[in-house]
Amino acid sequence: MPFGTFLPKEYSFFDFFEQHASTCVAGAQLLLHMLRDARAAAEQAQAMKEIEHAGDKITHHTMETLHKTFITPLDREEIRQLISGLDDILDFIDATSQRIVMYDLCEVTPDAQELGAVLLQATEQVQEAVRSLRQLKYPMDVLKMCVEINRLENEGDAILRKSMARLFKESTDPIYIIKWKEVYEFLEEALDSCEDVANMIEGIVLEHA
Amino acid sequence: MPFGTFLPKEYSFFDFFEQHASTCVAGAQLLLHMLRDARAAAEQAQAMKEIEHAGDKITHHTMETLHKTFITPLDREEIRQLISGLDDILDFIDATSQRIVMYDLCEVTPDAQELGAVLLQATEQVQEAVRSLRQLKYPMDVLKMCVEINRLENEGDAILRKSMARLFKESTDPIYIIKWKEVYEFLEEALDSCEDVANMIEGIVLEHA
Amino acid sequence: MPFGTFLPKEYSFFDFFEQHASTCVAGAQLLLHMLRDARAAAEQAQAMKEIEHAGDKITHHTMETLHKTFITPLDREEIRQLISGLDDILDFIDATSQRIVMYDLCEVTPDAQELGAVLLQATEQVQEAVRSLRQLKYPMDVLKMCVEINRLENEGDAILRKSMARLFKESTDPIYIIKWKEVYEFLEEALDSCEDVANMIEGIVLEHA
Repeated sequence: MPFGTFLPKEYSFFDFFEQHASTCVAGAQLLLHMLRDARAAAEQAQAMKEIEHAGDKITHHTMETLHKTFITPLDREEIRQLISGLDDILDFIDATSQRIVMYDLCEVTPDAQELGAVLLQATEQVQEAVRSLRQLKYPMDVLKMCVEINRLENEGDAILRKSMARLFKESTDPIYIIKWKEVYEFLEEALDSCEDVANMIEGIVLEHA
Repeated sequence: MPFGTFLPKEYSFFDFFEQHASTCVAGAQLLLHMLRDARAAAEQAQAMKEIEHAGDKITHHTMETLHKTFITPLDREEIRQLISGLDDILDFIDATSQRIVMYDLCEVTPDAQELGAVLLQATEQVQEAVRSLRQLKYPMDVLKMCVEINRLENEGDAILRKSMARLFKESTDPIYIIKWKEVYEFLEEALDSCEDVANMIEGIVLEHA
Repeated sequence: MPFGTFLPKEYSFFDFFEQHASTCVAGAQLLLHMLRDARAAAEQAQAMKEIEHAGDKITHHTMETLHKTFITPLDREEIRQLISGLDDILDFIDATSQRIVMYDLCEVTPDAQELGAVLLQATEQVQEAVRSLRQLKYPMDVLKMCVEINRLENEGDAILRKSMARLFKESTDPIYIIKWKEVYEFLEEALDSCEDVANMIEGIVLEHA
């Protein structure tokens, strides 16, 4: 009889992680759509808020389950940090999309689209890494995904610095600069949060594999 | 003989929490006064610095006591995070008031006043929730306060988004925008910190009640 | 036979802390050079990136070693937080230097130089405090260093508020304000991170001395 049969409740933590990683991918997909065509931004930002609320619920449910569970498959602090890390990714994705509406950014810069595409790739890697946590049959594969997320974060960082320099060189409108600077920064923070989650997963793999 | 009689030192942690929650309420009250009438802002910001230092001292004293105490009424990490969370609330309140002076903001926007009023309510709820932690006779009441703090944070978030959109629509002065954008953001971060504390308290109640 | 003879591996954590504290001092020195003469900023920012990568490697190596080590000389969480705290200092120093290049800031303000000088002093104190952690023969000396770091952070905070008020009073160019405001804020965050590390060290000393 497999190990899991005795501990169905513990396995639910991995379900929560996967569910939340899926909301992150859904959020990053919707954001990329908004960045490519912002004409329906208000409705899309509304849909994003719903994705973000779904993520909040999963986080809340995870915490509640944690308080009710005596034996956990990972350290309690690891569970707490991993679900909060996933929540951070989604929060920054949501914050980016809210800014597009708040600042009435109809024409999105190609730089923001490039960053949004890297972010989507990063969330997809996070989703795969989170999925692999459940079994840990191939720890080296998980570690490779974490390295890839780190690479994507570095790529995003380079795009950000290039975008920001361009923004300040090509625009003379300070209000335009204020708006786009903040969008770029939120995109970067979303990517940073992906890296934070990758580092947590790496730690879990090294400890448990 | 009640349990507490044997453990007077442990009970002091709850005193520290209450004292710090009181500094948060005092800070939020003073900030609302400043937002309603900023003519004496310099003196008020000075008074705020003193409140903030009082908070720092309580935090420091809590940490010191924690290191000297062997048996604690809550997990050590819970104590550390709760007092740091209260400290964050006060730091953001202080940061807001410093900006009013630094940026010479004589005429405060009604949006900032509205946010300041919600923040005061949130700190008052935090104070009540912290008080109830001591006994935990009525855990459901504490959980309701936490839900109310979350509601206030959502209310504040909606006001913030409305205020920020208005700021960018109605003003054409980028320096004015930079200043008020930052004030709104600090008010929001203060509210976010109230929510963080509510989440910590909820966790403590679920674990210990 | 001294205690350390049996536990050579544990001692390596103190080596990691010292190495990372050295990268922080090296970063703060290079940053002060840039702030005093920004003509070679692009090359200097490149050199800074290398220092930052060296810090990342030490952090990563510390985490790996932590996962492989069963008995640690400090709590696992203390090790994790201390090395992350040192990493934060260096990240903010690097972020400051990147901004000087990104924003093409040829003429550095005297206020930024003053802040950079205080930051260098703070990192030097952090380095000394970290060194003293290894032995803890003179715990009072370490605590004094922590107090000094707190004093430097307060000094930096006062300079920052003065600088920011001056920036908004003397400049009418919003783009200039956006750029320098961010540089000042990153310098302040680097100083804040020094204070965070000092608080961690204080905690470790109180617990272990």
